[in-house]
Amino acid sequence: MKHQIVRNIRRADADVIETLGRLGVATVHEAQSRRGLMAPFIRPIYPAARVAGSAVTISSQPGDNLMLHAAVEVCKPGDVLVVTTTSESTDGMFGDLLGVSCQAHGVRGLIIDAGIRDTAELTELNFPVWAKAVSAQGTVKSTGGSVNIPVVCAGALVNPGDVVIGDADGVVVVPREWAAEVARLGELRVAKEEITRQRLRNGELGLDFYGLRAKLAELGVEYVDGEV
Amino acid sequence: MKHQIVRNIRRADADVIETLGRLGVATVHEAQSRRGLMAPFIRPIYPAARVAGSAVTISSQPGDNLMLHAAVEVCKPGDVLVVTTTSESTDGMFGDLLGVSCQAHGVRGLIIDAGIRDTAELTELNFPVWAKAVSAQGTVKSTGGSVNIPVVCAGALVNPGDVVIGDADGVVVVPREWAAEVARLGELRVAKEEITRQRLRNGELGLDFYGLRAKLAELGVEYVDGEV
Amino acid sequence: MKHQIVRNIRRADADVIETLGRLGVATVHEAQSRRGLMAPFIRPIYPAARVAGSAVTISSQPGDNLMLHAAVEVCKPGDVLVVTTTSESTDGMFGDLLGVSCQAHGVRGLIIDAGIRDTAELTELNFPVWAKAVSAQGTVKSTGGSVNIPVVCAGALVNPGDVVIGDADGVVVVPREWAAEVARLGELRVAKEEITRQRLRNGELGLDFYGLRAKLAELGVEYVDGEV
Amino acid sequence: MKHQIVRNIRRADADVIETLGRLGVATVHEAQSRRGLMAPFIRPIYPAARVAGSAVTISSQPGDNLMLHAAVEVCKPGDVLVVTTTSESTDGMFGDLLGVSCQAHGVRGLIIDAGIRDTAELTELNFPVWAKAVSAQGTVKSTGGSVNIPVVCAGALVNPGDVVIGDADGVVVVPREWAAEVARLGELRVAKEEITRQRLRNGELGLDFYGLRAKLAELGVEYVDGEV
Amino acid sequence: MKHQIVRNIRRADADVIETLGRLGVATVHEAQSRRGLMAPFIRPIYPAARVAGSAVTISSQPGDNLMLHAAVEVCKPGDVLVVTTTSESTDGMFGDLLGVSCQAHGVRGLIIDAGIRDTAELTELNFPVWAKAVSAQGTVKSTGGSVNIPVVCAGALVNPGDVVIGDADGVVVVPREWAAEVARLGELRVAKEEITRQRLRNGELGLDFYGLRAKLAELGVEYVDGEV
Amino acid sequence: MKHQIVRNIRRADADVIETLGRLGVATVHEAQSRRGLMAPFIRPIYPAARVAGSAVTISSQPGDNLMLHAAVEVCKPGDVLVVTTTSESTDGMFGDLLGVSCQAHGVRGLIIDAGIRDTAELTELNFPVWAKAVSAQGTVKSTGGSVNIPVVCAGALVNPGDVVIGDADGVVVVPREWAAEVARLGELRVAKEEITRQRLRNGELGLDFYGLRAKLAELGVEYVDGEV
Repeated sequence: MKHQIVRNIRRADADVIETLGRLGVATVHEAQSRRGLMAPFIRPIYPAARVAGSAVTISSQPGDNLMLHAAVEVCKPGDVLVVTTTSESTDGMFGDLLGVSCQAHGVRGLIIDAGIRDTAELTELNFPVWAKAVSAQGTVKSTGGSVNIPVVCAGALVNPGDVVIGDADGVVVVPREWAAEVARLGELRVAKEEITRQRLRNGELGLDFYGLRAKLAELGVEYVDGEV
Repeated sequence: MKHQIVRNIRRADADVIETLGRLGVATVHEAQSRRGLMAPFIRPIYPAARVAGSAVTISSQPGDNLMLHAAVEVCKPGDVLVVTTTSESTDGMFGDLLGVSCQAHGVRGLIIDAGIRDTAELTELNFPVWAKAVSAQGTVKSTGGSVNIPVVCAGALVNPGDVVIGDADGVVVVPREWAAEVARLGELRVAKEEITRQRLRNGELGLDFYGLRAKLAELGVEYVDGEV
Repeated sequence: MKHQIVRNIRRADADVIETLGRLGVATVHEAQSRRGLMAPFIRPIYPAARVAGSAVTISSQPGDNLMLHAAVEVCKPGDVLVVTTTSESTDGMFGDLLGVSCQAHGVRGLIIDAGIRDTAELTELNFPVWAKAVSAQGTVKSTGGSVNIPVVCAGALVNPGDVVIGDADGVVVVPREWAAEVARLGELRVAKEEITRQRLRNGELGLDFYGLRAKLAELGVEYVDGEV
Repeated sequence: MKHQIVRNIRRADADVIETLGRLGVATVHEAQSRRGLMAPFIRPIYPAARVAGSAVTISSQPGDNLMLHAAVEVCKPGDVLVVTTTSESTDGMFGDLLGVSCQAHGVRGLIIDAGIRDTAELTELNFPVWAKAVSAQGTVKSTGGSVNIPVVCAGALVNPGDVVIGDADGVVVVPREWAAEVARLGELRVAKEEITRQRLRNGELGLDFYGLRAKLAELGVEYVDGEV
Repeated sequence: MKHQIVRNIRRADADVIETLGRLGVATVHEAQSRRGLMAPFIRPIYPAARVAGSAVTISSQPGDNLMLHAAVEVCKPGDVLVVTTTSESTDGMFGDLLGVSCQAHGVRGLIIDAGIRDTAELTELNFPVWAKAVSAQGTVKSTGGSVNIPVVCAGALVNPGDVVIGDADGVVVVPREWAAEVARLGELRVAKEEITRQRLRNGELGLDFYGLRAKLAELGVEYVDGEV
Repeated sequence: MKHQIVRNIRRADADVIETLGRLGVATVHEAQSRRGLMAPFIRPIYPAARVAGSAVTISSQPGDNLMLHAAVEVCKPGDVLVVTTTSESTDGMFGDLLGVSCQAHGVRGLIIDAGIRDTAELTELNFPVWAKAVSAQGTVKSTGGSVNIPVVCAGALVNPGDVVIGDADGVVVVPREWAAEVARLGELRVAKEEITRQRLRNGELGLDFYGLRAKLAELGVEYVDGEV
């Protein structure tokens, strides 16, 4: 039960990751049967933030960012840091110096169930971050943690090497083994939705398009014609 | 005590609604004696969002958006959907497909005491939304609810046909019967505030302008001249 | 134990305040040994908001903005209003009229552990505000409070005349007596960080730069080479 | 749009109220098709608290208990005070003196979407209270409000004279006009539940008793026999 | 990616489970290196509640308790239900009828990241429950979910067959494979703590007992002898 | 700006502290003009908890209880520990071993703006605790903090040696210099309230007793005689 840093992880194919990123969070979440969504309190620090990459996971003591430094060393270009603390914390564990270091090593972004700081500088660096809080509260480097173990981040289970996708709608996690299949299903979904969008734009009602009138009747929902 | 969809509702006059929208939330709230404000956790999904329209109200099971589809059919151009769930939920009950459908039917916006998704797409559509949360969590279409019954949304009572106004300050509800009078009072208020603004801009103190020095004395508030 | 309005307060030197504002919240917070940070629920109402000034402190009854008007009179150009209520409140105690009045008297900004309204107008005025909530809920002018007494605002102790600094990372308070020394330490810190930033940008690892490998070993953190 | 105190309200029959109180919150809530439940943040101040009575409703300025005193005068024995504030507040608007006064006038209990104090004394008086918070924070008596108007309390609409029922599960509101029918349906429900309880106690599965196996199959839920 | 009900799970030895239950949450959490603790918002519904058993895990749609009925069938005496919903919910998914059914099948208790109702009746049954909320809000039986898959409950990962321990301090999860070792380490810890307790009771300071004076010196903490 | 442990503090007279404890939180809070109340999220861990004593204040790193051990050494019989962390934390920083140690040194209780554990054992020891959370999450002993400096605890400023009083209504802080005067005013208040209580018990209305009818008229509150 010791703390560990696992150096090598399996990753999904780069083109699968690229596809998942293009599909976006809502579509990917639907494509994998509504699994793997992080809780809505994890928000991007700037509206245009978008990312998709392989998760390098970190479990830290709250208020201590020692393990983030350890994690950068085992990252490969295209990775995304996924950070959780052993109990609730909003401390600013990550700022512009770590952002610069991450970019130097090809790390694409950060998902953190805690706080960050240097918001303006990270935005200027165009380094996308999803966090629970913005807080200038600094952290120590005193207590051990782990890198690349399974973690729970914002209510979602993340294994090292899983694909994490972030955009304005939040963050979703795709297990590495499912990534190709989810990408395929997501593409199909986008094609189908484009047709739906066209028909709805032309004024067709969702009631008709999805065939919901029978459902309403079956549920005993009554229509009332008098005016209120 | 069955679920109902009421097809026809009375609405306020279009020019009254237009005036209320121009006055904005803070002024309208004051003009109707500080009533009808929704709780501050309801926020616009983009800063420039503004809306005023007639409320088509929806009461849904949490995690179920069946009744939103039913509601679009009974909307008229100029309406605004007002959605509440029978218990707390942040699920993303509304996304870009419903946004497209709403725009095809002249629906002006959405107020929802729950979550939405496709934030970026809805922003691009310029479809204004006030919501409690952003969440990609999809919903089912399995349980009945009601359309155009009185609902409590973010702590405010909304009757179908009430005027709802939304801007960067939140959302306020004006009972249909009061709408013309509130619009009139709001216009007076704006005129009066313009004079106040001019005098304050010239350096006159609120203490003097509002005559508050006597109040401070009556309350026993002491002035201390020594430096601290 | 009466309510008081203290007219005269000591202030830090203008150039020290200017330096602290330029350094920003995160740096100042570190420079004074991680003290004086307000809780992260206090957020700027627009992303580019920045301020540094001398605190004029206000303790108000919740839902009552009488004392804000009293405070404007004792402000000098360069001051920042720091408002707290005797119990939790999100009411909109401050809006564009008070914003105009503040600007007429040279007040630079507002930090408030409560709500504000007229967000759009305050943003247009370029009057920076850090608040707990946006709410159109209006307030009365009925109950006494105090100006320029020590207050607790968003968890931080603020004495009148302390320097308050706000930016996208939140708000930090520097005791007046420490201000010059903190500004000096902050400047040193910035210089040092620029070197760190350069080395990290060149790919040097934080592990090496900060000498953390020994720490990890001492804590018993193990490296695992097998792939997961 | 003035503040009003309505002296006379219609009430449900005493025996109907007694029946609803005996049925309890969960049964009554089901009997009226899952409507009228207050949000779960309203909790009893002692576990054995139980109440049923006619609502005398109060809308107050936050931090101001003037209208509670006005309300006691219009109460009749068997009434329950239902208090809401025009915006969020946890101030202790009610304590043992008001409790003593209420008991002297036959008021049976208090439901309050705000705070109370003198918890120990109210418990000793056996005066049941459901509140959002316990706080010693005292209140002023400075601002007008209304008695016996429709209010929203903890997310539920309450009209004066509605029946409010409170127990360890929370608080539910029954519209006065529905009270007799809801009591009748609740009695039927209790009888039916007693049979269910007996069969479940004997080991019959809910899957069989409620006929849910077909539902699971229809939904495509698979059984897996291998061990995990 | 279909919903599944897994009938058979491996369980830890009964005497290991009994030992872990006797050790209690705080000791077990320490014995497994501070892992597996659920978030503190999960609280027992009565102070004396205690449980230890094998987890039968359930993932449900919010507001839908269909899968709880399905889960009872696959339980064995000594099991504990561990319930999570696919998004946040406080609905009362479990009440006294399910409690009676659980007891008929030897289920020892319930851990639920959602709401429960019939608090008084469950307390009388002496059926221990740890929940996020008490709410009478009833649920439907319309949407599929899974039984005995890995779930995240209150921030902790729970695999089917893991040992869950609950008491007044909350809930901790022990992976089945670690259970025997954690029980052994916990017993050692209790023995050691008894010695510590004895010495502290005799007035020995923690500073001396744990050897912390050197640590304080190393950290540069100063002693000040003057009186404040 | 180093961390400090101040060994000697001034304390209020023992009989004044005893009086304040007997008066209780609500009365003391009123007696000192409604100042010094901690936020309502600080709750006693058992209903009968009561304490009054001299504050020994502690500022800790979140998740680190090193300074609690340092503080016990400087306590005298009759003291109460008042603990705050430099940022939000719910970790269980205090348990039964520290409770035993405190009792051995005459420490009367604990007020903590963080978490505690061993709830059942502390209750059995009859060691009164007011906390923000119950959590078994253990803490490290790695980072320096201070003892007997001014701290902000649950929103209230506490100086070392101030009198802290806790009961079922929460916690209030009385500055040491005011303690005797507040005790005197509190005694007067209790005497006066006993007369009020007697008159209200006899059925006199608060409206008459406090002379509020004129206030209602002045505020323009209307009485309506028709029935609703």
